[in-house]
Amino acid sequence: MSPSLNVVFVAYPGITQLDFTGPHEVLCRLPGATCTLASREGGVLHTPSGLCFAELVPLREVSACNVLCVAGGYGTIEALDDEALLLEIQRLGKQSRYITSVCTGSLLLGAAGLLRGKRAASHWAWRDLLSAFGAIPDSARVVRDGNVITGGGVTAGIDLALSIAAEIAGVSFAQSIQLAIEYAPAPPFDAGRPELAPDGVVELITERLLPLRARREAAVERAAARPLALG
Amino acid sequence: MSPSLNVVFVAYPGITQLDFTGPHEVLCRLPGATCTLASREGGVLHTPSGLCFAELVPLREVSACNVLCVAGGYGTIEALDDEALLLEIQRLGKQSRYITSVCTGSLLLGAAGLLRGKRAASHWAWRDLLSAFGAIPDSARVVRDGNVITGGGVTAGIDLALSIAAEIAGVSFAQSIQLAIEYAPAPPFDAGRPELAPDGVVELITERLLPLRARREAAVERAAARPLALG
Repeated sequence: MSPSLNVVFVAYPGITQLDFTGPHEVLCRLPGATCTLASREGGVLHTPSGLCFAELVPLREVSACNVLCVAGGYGTIEALDDEALLLEIQRLGKQSRYITSVCTGSLLLGAAGLLRGKRAASHWAWRDLLSAFGAIPDSARVVRDGNVITGGGVTAGIDLALSIAAEIAGVSFAQSIQLAIEYAPAPPFDAGRPELAPDGVVELITERLLPLRARREAAVERAAARPLALG
Repeated sequence: MSPSLNVVFVAYPGITQLDFTGPHEVLCRLPGATCTLASREGGVLHTPSGLCFAELVPLREVSACNVLCVAGGYGTIEALDDEALLLEIQRLGKQSRYITSVCTGSLLLGAAGLLRGKRAASHWAWRDLLSAFGAIPDSARVVRDGNVITGGGVTAGIDLALSIAAEIAGVSFAQSIQLAIEYAPAPPFDAGRPELAPDGVVELITERLLPLRARREAAVERAAARPLALG
């Protein structure tokens, strides 16, 4: 019999669904894996993109996990002020074998005091904010520092999950998952990082993000000043 | 004001969630886009991986769409015998600007009579079955034939969606979506296609799939014999 493996994905309003549905598809295929989608209050979660997830488990009912994965999204701004959520992330993170995040989920790990002195990844547009939490921003797509494994923006979660799968179940098994989900990516363009994107494309994004910048900076500043963030 | 763009994802029991959550994350970012997750009866859908989606729209309530996207999964076997579902796929497909699928979703397009004489992709392990529906199996990751755009297994849906995004909103906008979701994939291994996977890894999958092969072949044979499949 396979040993059990409890993977907990932390969700909250304003989350980007692919941040967790990507790694969920990989990690649910590990032997003995149970993947749980959890939020502060449990129940139903509407994502900004229009999907509706149901039967979420309240985080207080999750006693422990082997892999904690915190997703990102525009809602990270509000979540940075949600001390009850951050306390649950801290509690689960402190006992988890792996502490992981995708995209701006790493800001929540930071606000929960789990990144002090650690190298960490985040979405490229917000990565610099990690340093407010004593973390060292790293531009790699998947960054490992001890048992903390963080990913870059959104789709980095799939690469991150395959790395974790290899650690847990071995390289061959992880490769068999990669083959099962036919993950031989072939994007039609090569614009997935700011340094690769053609002129004008980065500006298209930063214009959209600009109005959020001040709010997110302020939220990070408030969160970094709380005792929770000091670990 | 942006023109409206109705994208409908067809779901059914036994679906692979990343087949539609991947393209959903891309296409929901198009100007004027409304993404609808629909199933035969609507309501709640539990995926085999343990996620629960809610508020699905019954397909009969969807009058029309601009992009139809049919996902795949192990449940395709049962879906091939679901004539009511196939009739809805046929009805929506016949009026849609783009008819698309991810993974074994193309078998359902075939059973709905939408692939006769068309080149089409599918998950590598099941691609050969497309010919029962008069389609021409194609090993490319994203295959376009007229207004039919089909993808390979699971993760191909992200590449497929970026191609569609470029057609609808232009290359620069599609690149800005790619950058927003930081889609510069860097899998830790290179095992995402059978010809790339190391010895033994393909066998790990085919052993798991072998028990399904006879059932899926039989379901394809039954579906191909129905008037519906003849278009």
